[in-house]
Order: sequence, then structure tokens, then C-alpha cells
Amino acid sequence: MRRKFLVPPDLASLSTPSLLLERDVLVGNLDRMAARAAALGVTLRPHLKTSKSADVAALAATRGSVGGFTVSTLKEAEYFAGHGHRDLMYGVSIEPGKFARAAALIRSGVRLIVTCDHPHVARALAEAGAGLGVRFPTAVEIDCGEHRSGLAPDDARIVDIAALLHAGPGTELVGVCTHSGHSYAGRALAEHRAVAEDERAAAVYAAEALQAHNLPCPLVSLGSTPVALHAEHLKGITEVRAGVYMFGDLFQTGIGSCRREEIAISVLTAVIGHRPERNLLLVDAGALALSKDTSTAKLPPSQNAGFGLVATLAGEVIPGITVAGVYQEHGLITGPDPIDFARFPLGSRLRILPNHSCLTASAYDRYHVLAGGRLMAEWPRISGW
Amino acid sequence: MRRKFLVPPDLASLSTPSLLLERDVLVGNLDRMAARAAALGVTLRPHLKTSKSADVAALAATRGSVGGFTVSTLKEAEYFAGHGHRDLMYGVSIEPGKFARAAALIRSGVRLIVTCDHPHVARALAEAGAGLGVRFPTAVEIDCGEHRSGLAPDDARIVDIAALLHAGPGTELVGVCTHSGHSYAGRALAEHRAVAEDERAAAVYAAEALQAHNLPCPLVSLGSTPVALHAEHLKGITEVRAGVYMFGDLFQTGIGSCRREEIAISVLTAVIGHRPERNLLLVDAGALALSKDTSTAKLPPSQNAGFGLVATLAGEVIPGITVAGVYQEHGLITGPDPIDFARFPLGSRLRILPNHSCLTASAYDRYHVLAGGRLMAEWPRISGW
Repeated sequence: MRRKFLVPPDLASLSTPSLLLERDVLVGNLDRMAARAAALGVTLRPHLKTSKSADVAALAATRGSVGGFTVSTLKEAEYFAGHGHRDLMYGVSIEPGKFARAAALIRSGVRLIVTCDHPHVARALAEAGAGLGVRFPTAVEIDCGEHRSGLAPDDARIVDIAALLHAGPGTELVGVCTHSGHSYAGRALAEHRAVAEDERAAAVYAAEALQAHNLPCPLVSLGSTPVALHAEHLKGITEVRAGVYMFGDLFQTGIGSCRREEIAISVLTAVIGHRPERNLLLVDAGALALSKDTSTAKLPPSQNAGFGLVATLAGEVIPGITVAGVYQEHGLITGPDPIDFARFPLGSRLRILPNHSCLTASAYDRYHVLAGGRLMAEWPRISGW
Repeated sequence: MRRKFLVPPDLASLSTPSLLLERDVLVGNLDRMAARAAALGVTLRPHLKTSKSADVAALAATRGSVGGFTVSTLKEAEYFAGHGHRDLMYGVSIEPGKFARAAALIRSGVRLIVTCDHPHVARALAEAGAGLGVRFPTAVEIDCGEHRSGLAPDDARIVDIAALLHAGPGTELVGVCTHSGHSYAGRALAEHRAVAEDERAAAVYAAEALQAHNLPCPLVSLGSTPVALHAEHLKGITEVRAGVYMFGDLFQTGIGSCRREEIAISVLTAVIGHRPERNLLLVDAGALALSKDTSTAKLPPSQNAGFGLVATLAGEVIPGITVAGVYQEHGLITGPDPIDFARFPLGSRLRILPNHSCLTASAYDRYHVLAGGRLMAEWPRISGW
């Protein structure tokens, strides 16, 4: 559990809470996923909703065969397009209120693929695109078992939508996409493999339906971090999307997506209170600094980290304690064993490993980047819509 | 449940998700609390951690006898000081890593009261203040029953700390403060009154201990929204702090702090998916737009709003459905009765009332302010540390 770098003295003087990013860990994660995509014979279209950072995107673009990126908001699309990334997929179902903003990006030269799972939206896209001077590159979304968005692979509307998009004056049918968010429910390798195969089969089934109707389907896109890591093969798939692998987190560790030492981000926090009579250490990282995500509570009890695991300034996880409670700006650290308060003087610094890095990172406007054991940079990140 | 204003056409064209703030509701909440503080004979020191907005602070400063503000981060202190608010209390226990930043504010002319509950920190403050060219105005924090920070009212260290602060070259003893976060556990008026009286008694007991030792105690500060609203009297108290009353939220409604129509903020969201076979409406407000706060789950089942209540664009709450689940950018609306999907076309707009307004607001960089039924302004707000 010990991390490999030496902690530079200036880390302790950062204001708290701050978000730390270990560049070498990030690079390792990027390389690992790029190698997986290459082994699977698919293009990697990394999701940027976790990092929301142009510096992270630039690094990802140089490591492995990255074929564009995925985004979760149009603000991300605008931001990353402004940093030179012109091949983007907006992964959340588009609705008419976003057509004009998406069209503006497309007119500026960005290939912004949008997704759709309803004939009404397909028809609206086709009509609006013509008026807005664009052809929206659009993928039909398939539901491979998560039951969030998308159509079941055998739903006849898939072909109807594809035909609308293909014929429409303001749309370009680019293919099909799916996402197995339920892959996060898997725990064992066999479960991950089964979900991955279901997802692959769903996407391929839908793609074949389009082809059977003489509709183009150059894009057959799927993905999530567990599926990208554990799929046995991805025959018939052209690209895999994944995002949280870049940073990892405790939940991903729990479901086998990464090892704990592959978690690239942590929250630097200060000890602000001692309550020995309650075996409680107070820190200045609370609900805003960590998020209220408690996803590790779904894992076996030994992996329930409360609101985060506690590590030393050097990154060594301290066993037996977690962030057990949060208020807006207070974190409450406790555990079953008596805390040695002398080890954690008031004002001393700790690091908190997050349950869910996408949500924890969202509270910060920058990363404090560590490389070779030293703070090397601040990388800005965006939030909001 | 119908709100009093007409919805202007341009509200429907805002990008989603966006954070709406109804100015008239806010003003009503400000006036109500100002009247309460006046009736109790105490100064009101509103907490700005909910709004983090200079426009909201400016409005609060003009409504009722406001004696300074409370903040939860030094970034808030710097921001509000920059907007002319020079009497501030930093309500989270200070630690040595924040001394220099606090001192810089004080040297610039801000009366920034800090709080402390440990002799080590008091001593460090006294020494550091001298070196930094300031006398930190400092209150000793009392624990009135929440058991988070502070010392029990009869703890002998209260007087020790006060003496250290009074004698120290870099500190000025300003008095005592306490906060009854456990007031949120109250449900009935009698419970709120009991907590308020415990809090009042704890603060007064500690203040009297200081006075018995010839230590000055001009400030006797307590508060939370429920205590400010429900205390029968606040004899011996000089000021009350409260924050969430400005916006209200579903949790505060559930514990009797406000009526639902007194909730001033809501999240504007777009319908992005229909899953009639699962009785599920998808919207573009998820975990980031709403927060993962599920505090209404602690209320009686009829008040459990999941991740938020659903209202029409005009602000009328739609019974029988809630935001039952969230992903990063997806909200899943469902309920026990069949949803009339024709009523919620893809692309139509809804409003979500938040469980906990402090956390929901934190994701946004501005408020879209409605007044007299029209969008009147965008008010910026800050986040981070």
C-alpha cells in the first residue's frame, strides 16, 4: 500500500482541502487501458467526464490509439473542442433544447456525435439540423441491460430511428452505441465477462439489424471501465468507451477495476479537531470536498470506506479508520480501534482516497499534480453545464 | 403548492440543468428571519455557506439588523470581504495551516473572527498572530450536544483557552460560540425548543464561566435555522447564526423550518428519456446537478423525496413521483402511480426541488434569478476553497 514517491516538503503547505493527482499513476492507468484496447482490436474513445481537464485529455491523446473522446455535457464538448479535440461523442441522450448549442460546435468543425433512442427526437434532429446548417452525426442508443436509456436490441424502433437519421436532411447515421452501467454491479471476473459479452452481443445484434436494412453502421461503440478491462473479446465492435479508469477510486478497486495503489487522485485535508472521548478525528474535508457518494457501502463490509479511506501525507493507507461522517465542511474520521491522536496533531495533513472519483473531483477547479514526488503543476478543470 | 408568479417564456429556453432562484421567496425568508432575530432581541449573523453569493449577501444586509456574516471557508471570507463585508466569522475550527491566509484578511481591515476548541491551537494562534502582525479575534467553541467540535460547557479547558487567548500577544478573546447541528434531528416543535434551550444554556454557562474569571465575553453566539426559528427566548445570547433559511429545502420543510412554497431554489431540467415499461422518466439533472444528498430519507416515508421532488416549469409540485435515482448526469424520475408520459414530452422542462440546498447549489457557478415572474438576472456564486 505504500506509494512509490517521496513527499516533497511543499505538499504540506498547500491549502486544504485540495485535490491531488499523481501523474505517474495516471500515466500507468492510461497505458494499461490503451494496451487493453489494442489487445481487443478496438479504438479507445476515453470518457472525459471524470477528469474534465484539458491537460489530462492531452496526456491521454498521446498514450495509445485514442480515437476521439466522450463527454457528458455540452460544456465539456465546448471546452475540449477549444483545446483541439475535434472528435467527440456526447454520451447523454440529446433533447431539442440542446440542438442549437450542439449545432454551433458542429459548424465550427467539431465532429460531435450525438445519441438518440426515440423516433421523435430523431425526427426533430433531422429537421432542426437542416435549419441549423448541419448534419448531426447521430448514433442510435441500445439498451444492453442497464435499463437506463436506449432501446432493447430487438426493438423494431432501432431500425426506424436509423432510417430516419439516414434519410433526414439534418442528420448523418453513424451507427449504434451502448453502455453497460450495470457492469458496476459485477464483482467477480466471471460476472464482468458475462456483462461484457451481453453488451457486445447487444451492440452487434443492433448493428446487424441496420446492415440487414442497408443502413450504414460504421460505428459500433460500447463501454465502461469494467467491460473494457474484462471483456474476453469485442468482435464486431469498433470502439470502446471508458473513463473512470484514468483516476480509479475505491469503488472501482472493490469491483476489480484497479488496485488501490492505482488510484490517482486524493483529497489533501487538515486535522482540525480531536474528540478522544468519541474516538473521533475531525478534518476539513466534508461533503463538498469528498461528495456524499457512499458507493462502497454496496461492497462487502470490509471494503465499505464510508466517505473515503484515510492515508498519510505520503499516501500510505491507515488501516482501521475511515471518513465515517460528513457535514458540509467537516469530515469525521473514526473506526473500531482507538485512534492514536498523538499521531495526528491538529494542523497535520492527511489524504483521503475517494469512493467515486468523478464526483469527488467535481468540487475542485484544479488538480495539484505530483510527479516524481514533487508538486509539478496545477491543472485546471471545469465543472457545471 | 402553486407558486404566485407567471412563468415567462424565456425560462423554457435556458440551458439545462440550471439553478433557479426566486427573489421574492428569498426576500420573504430573509424578512422572516430578521423579524425572528428582532423578536428574540439578538443580532442576526447570517451564514453565507448556502448561497455563496455577493448578491444574496447584499440583499440580506439590507433586510433586518444584520451584524456581520458567517462563512464556512476562507475563500468565502476573501470573496465576501472583497464585496465590502468586513465583519465575518469563520465558523469551522481554525488550524495552523490557515493562519497566514486569515491574517492577511485581518491585516486588510476585515474583522475575521475565528473559532478554537483546543489549547494547542489557542497557543499557536497567540504566537502566530504576533508574528503575522495581527490579533486574531477568537471565540472559544462550546459543544452544546452535537458532539462534533467544541468543548462541553463545564470543561475546564474553556477558561484555560480563553485565558490564553486573552493574554496572548496575537489574539483577542471575543467570547464563546456554539452550534446545535443536532437541531436538525428535531421533528416536533417541542423538540426544537428543547434543543434551542440546551444550546442557549450551554453558551450562557460558558460565558458566565469566562466572566467569573474576569475574562471578557462580549460575544455569545449560537445558532442554526431551527434554533433561530423555534427558540422560546435567547436570554444571555448576543447573536444568532443561521443560513439555510435563506433558500430552504425539502429537509428543512420536513423538520418544520419552512413551508414547501418557501423553498427559493430549484433545478431546471429537461426530459431526455421515456421508459414507459419501467414507469421511468429520464432528466438531465443527475448526481452533479442535484447532489447525492438523500437527507429526506431520514424523514417519515411520505416525505422521502429520493434525490428531489419534481415540479412543473411553473413550480407546481407533481404528486406521486420523485427523482428516485441518479447517475452523474442522469436523473431517474418514477413513483408508485403510472406516469402520464404525454404530459412530459422529450425536451420539456421540469423543476426539481432539492433535499439540501447547500449541497445542490454548490454545483453551480450562478443563479438564474426570477422576480415578478421574469428572469431578472444571473447572480454569480463561488465554490471551492
